[in-house]
Amino acid sequence: MYSNLWLDEKVKDNGASVELNGYDEASKRVINALNELKTSKALSGLKIKASCSKVPALSDEGYRLAFENGVYTIFTNTDAALVYAVFRLINLIRLKADLKDPITEIPKNPLRMLNHWDNMDGSIERGYSGDSFFFEDNDIVINERTTDYVRAVASLGYNGVVINNVNVKGAACDLINERFIGKVKELSDLFASYGVKLYLSLNYAAPIEDETVKSADPFDEKVIAWWQKKMAYIYENIPDFAGFLVKADSEGRPGPFTYGRTQADGANMLAKAINPYGGIIIWRCFVYNCKQDWRDLKTDRARAAYDYFHDLDGEFLDNVILQIKNGPMDFQVREPVAPLFGDMSSTNQMIEFQIAQEYTGQQRHVCYLIPWFKEVLSFDTYAVGEGSNVKDIVSGKTFSRKLAGMCAVTNTGNDFNWTGHDLAAANLYGFGRLCFNPDLSSEEIAEEWIKLTFNDDTKVVSNIKTILMMSWPAYEKYNAPLGIGWMCSPAYHYGPDPDGYEYSVWGTYHKADHKYIGVERNSTGTGYSTLYREPLKTMYEKPETTPDELMLFFHRMPYDYKLKSGKTIIQHVYDTHFEGAEDVEKMNALWLELKGLVSEDSFDRVKERFDHQVWHSKEWRDVINSYFYRKTLIPDEKGRPLY
Amino acid sequence: MYSNLWLDEKVKDNGASVELNGYDEASKRVINALNELKTSKALSGLKIKASCSKVPALSDEGYRLAFENGVYTIFTNTDAALVYAVFRLINLIRLKADLKDPITEIPKNPLRMLNHWDNMDGSIERGYSGDSFFFEDNDIVINERTTDYVRAVASLGYNGVVINNVNVKGAACDLINERFIGKVKELSDLFASYGVKLYLSLNYAAPIEDETVKSADPFDEKVIAWWQKKMAYIYENIPDFAGFLVKADSEGRPGPFTYGRTQADGANMLAKAINPYGGIIIWRCFVYNCKQDWRDLKTDRARAAYDYFHDLDGEFLDNVILQIKNGPMDFQVREPVAPLFGDMSSTNQMIEFQIAQEYTGQQRHVCYLIPWFKEVLSFDTYAVGEGSNVKDIVSGKTFSRKLAGMCAVTNTGNDFNWTGHDLAAANLYGFGRLCFNPDLSSEEIAEEWIKLTFNDDTKVVSNIKTILMMSWPAYEKYNAPLGIGWMCSPAYHYGPDPDGYEYSVWGTYHKADHKYIGVERNSTGTGYSTLYREPLKTMYEKPETTPDELMLFFHRMPYDYKLKSGKTIIQHVYDTHFEGAEDVEKMNALWLELKGLVSEDSFDRVKERFDHQVWHSKEWRDVINSYFYRKTLIPDEKGRPLY
Repeated sequence: MYSNLWLDEKVKDNGASVELNGYDEASKRVINALNELKTSKALSGLKIKASCSKVPALSDEGYRLAFENGVYTIFTNTDAALVYAVFRLINLIRLKADLKDPITEIPKNPLRMLNHWDNMDGSIERGYSGDSFFFEDNDIVINERTTDYVRAVASLGYNGVVINNVNVKGAACDLINERFIGKVKELSDLFASYGVKLYLSLNYAAPIEDETVKSADPFDEKVIAWWQKKMAYIYENIPDFAGFLVKADSEGRPGPFTYGRTQADGANMLAKAINPYGGIIIWRCFVYNCKQDWRDLKTDRARAAYDYFHDLDGEFLDNVILQIKNGPMDFQVREPVAPLFGDMSSTNQMIEFQIAQEYTGQQRHVCYLIPWFKEVLSFDTYAVGEGSNVKDIVSGKTFSRKLAGMCAVTNTGNDFNWTGHDLAAANLYGFGRLCFNPDLSSEEIAEEWIKLTFNDDTKVVSNIKTILMMSWPAYEKYNAPLGIGWMCSPAYHYGPDPDGYEYSVWGTYHKADHKYIGVERNSTGTGYSTLYREPLKTMYEKPETTPDELMLFFHRMPYDYKLKSGKTIIQHVYDTHFEGAEDVEKMNALWLELKGLVSEDSFDRVKERFDHQVWHSKEWRDVINSYFYRKTLIPDEKGRPLY
Repeated sequence: MYSNLWLDEKVKDNGASVELNGYDEASKRVINALNELKTSKALSGLKIKASCSKVPALSDEGYRLAFENGVYTIFTNTDAALVYAVFRLINLIRLKADLKDPITEIPKNPLRMLNHWDNMDGSIERGYSGDSFFFEDNDIVINERTTDYVRAVASLGYNGVVINNVNVKGAACDLINERFIGKVKELSDLFASYGVKLYLSLNYAAPIEDETVKSADPFDEKVIAWWQKKMAYIYENIPDFAGFLVKADSEGRPGPFTYGRTQADGANMLAKAINPYGGIIIWRCFVYNCKQDWRDLKTDRARAAYDYFHDLDGEFLDNVILQIKNGPMDFQVREPVAPLFGDMSSTNQMIEFQIAQEYTGQQRHVCYLIPWFKEVLSFDTYAVGEGSNVKDIVSGKTFSRKLAGMCAVTNTGNDFNWTGHDLAAANLYGFGRLCFNPDLSSEEIAEEWIKLTFNDDTKVVSNIKTILMMSWPAYEKYNAPLGIGWMCSPAYHYGPDPDGYEYSVWGTYHKADHKYIGVERNSTGTGYSTLYREPLKTMYEKPETTPDELMLFFHRMPYDYKLKSGKTIIQHVYDTHFEGAEDVEKMNALWLELKGLVSEDSFDRVKERFDHQVWHSKEWRDVINSYFYRKTLIPDEKGRPLY
């Protein structure tokens, strides 16, 4: 059993009159789209006409929707776009849009992807919603839920899914071998029937296991031949296979560095092998020294991706795309935007977000991440002068790249509600919408999702929207302050542990002492701030011009430094932590008002999560505040309890 | 494959002439003892005569050994004592004792036990030497290794072994049911054949699972009847079964508190049920609130065992014995002696140590614990005036208790060398010797063990003895200072994490701030110090009279307080941490000198552990020192690096 997410209720036959013109009726996408049109409760009795008209402006994935002369009309150029269009039409009707003014929507991002970190034993790395629905006991599972998942992601216009964890081990190595290739093909066909491409994560070190190769050196002829043969085998079995995601030289995964080669050498070797078949290689930039000595003050993990990739601009083949995490560290609740964005004008780039709430409450805390992603996307990199926003760089617009886009590590699992916390589904929904159109506002997306998921009762919409919009700022308030990050328990990444990472190998230190906290990252420190273009470089150079929310990311500061807000750092810590926990009380109260207005099951599930969050946000508040108080012995101006 | 521990090499027939008088030749113990006499290499060609002579002074477990008229003679009163005597004779001859002056040895402690925390899936809770050799895949294993284990512990005079973890779950619940009772009987018989009794840990909550009972209330007639029936069943199958160890109301285990009953109510209910068969109930006093709010300054875990048990003196039945951990907390490298010892004159008490190095380096660091146990055992409780040492209380002497003794959580597992670190076997050996005779010195025991395990080369004996004697003090130096404990990583209990327990539920806080560290436990604080008798109470009341090594256990102190050593607390921290790491370098150097003088395998294994310890002791040094430095910003007087 599992919930229906935001999808429309199905009826046996909705009596809609549907006319399809110009589509290949044998196409599975068309069959699926037609089926949606015929069974959507929202479309009951309506007249619908969909036409495959070559309208260049719509390109491959766009659609035009209208209500003309009593008929709902759909125009697309492809059958894949028809799938997206149908779902969008259904949603718009459910949202009571009248469509008297036709709308044309074309996805802004070529790649709109979800990355699953699902392991073949059924576990999910950083999964907070139960086990995998793709894998169980080292086998692939294909059942009703698989279809409903693909249908749900297609309904938002996602066009690619990586089904397995980037850390490819054990049985997952066999996804490209005889053992599983048949089932991968079956899954890939199912995905394709909704206009979604299936990708796999790949074990870069795979040929090492082959007794006749025993290497993964990208310059080794045997290695090159091994991959050529492997790609031929894959495409023989799955002719429309999309490509691979690769994590190499990262957190213990082998890669080209092992052989003294560059990241480009590694990526290009694979890209050449897959190129004859039209596949792509998505190469992650999450490369850093994960065995740092904490006493080493010179190495700065924040610089790593930049330092490893910056000089390689122009060296990557056209069917390689770099996948860059939004920030320079690792999905913290607040980080600057990674300086690599816009830094490489001759290299394909896409952005990687994480809707799995690894560091943002693990789907036990509500944390609507779309406002945070919006901030990142609208960040001006000044790559080609003012207005070089991240969203235009990753969409390919700025540097006219065809291979470009956005992806997120997903938050789904086998739980009844798919995402652990019912409200976490807003991130799965919202991220899909954002990939399609980064200009949508967080509020708009939230409202759509609430209405499609719950109902359009004014209180329901208003309260849940308020909860969602409060949630990320609240989480930031009661967590590590001012961009410093990493004050959570190591390994679990959950719950407060201010010194948890302080003496470890992870390169994530705050170095707090009695007087100061933070690592100096300007030109006198690690130089990280100098990796940005002007005027950012100058802005981040000095505390006076650095935005408050990133103060402790960029600078080592005394606790009594006055922020632009007029508060000292220490008082800011106290105030935000008390506020954050109060915000959770408010969100909880707003939810409790919805009893009887949303389904009882959903109400109870969210209530239970809030019970935990109310308690846990106070743990965060008291631990962080006490940590700072004990270190400084500076009392709270308002005399609230510190321990 | 596994090593031979300290046991003598066996030969097919040593040609010794052996005469046994007065023993029951059908007794398995006698058969085993005779076999040892006939196959011990050390006894080759010697004349031995063993007599079962009723010498009241030897009691049940003592023996007299002598060399008279060219014949080695053994006197014992029982066949169990014959086993201990034979092994002792062999060892004495291997150690080149001449026995011209007869020696009489009678174990000082009635109970001399090892507690295994082995789970039936084969894992060992806090096990650092591989998996269990008693259990595998939820079944009991009996093989050659089982026999060699029993032989090894019998050779030291241990007379009881609890084979399963005190946390009794899953399959382990069936150890007293039809599923396993046959194999338990088989194991018990094997143990008995070496004069060792087999005990089981028991699930106090077992009758809850019975649909007709559904309770564990010790006052519930159904519960009482359930246990009576269960004991009858057990003794029908294993007539000489020794008894049970019980962990109740502790760390999530249910117990009498669940039903508003006292610990005595719970223990006595079981004791009554087992009494008709001569069995005993060993009741652990490790009862405390493991869900403490860290903000709560009033609750003091150190008081818990005392507070829960103190008033129950005289209420426990004669076949109940309380098993009390050496300190009030949990096997830290330094704690005061638990105030419960000697506090209950009308209650059987035994002491629980831990040779599994849970908090003392997990058998990756060398840590010879006998000197620490000796300190505890010679601690004067003043229970009946000066000289009321712990060793006399737990041996039953002070209060004339027959049921009394010592036990240790054991450090054994399926590793080749049984104890992970070759040198950790000194604790298994040493603890057995200490149970037999707490007056032996740590050095004596170490020397015996070295000669029996390695050889009697002067350098071997001298270097290893120096290593062993340096090891516990070194570990204390580079760990949490001055008795404060718990600066290790939670869950793993390994490696430094100064604030790891600070904001948790475990009741183990140091509350360090910029100026002070520690919890005040005197009469103005939690009152813990008042639980001791005079003059201890007065001594622990004030820092001036509190021993330096326990300063931060008893008092909240400023970092610049001058210890009796003349050093400030902060300088003491720095100095000891530098010294501790240097001590490890010294121990390592002493070991490296032994290349070629001990077996190559053993040399390499220990070398590898030292490689780790050398590095890890520096981690401890730098993390603890940096933690204190960052908190205080007080520099090291000697200007050594702090981070």
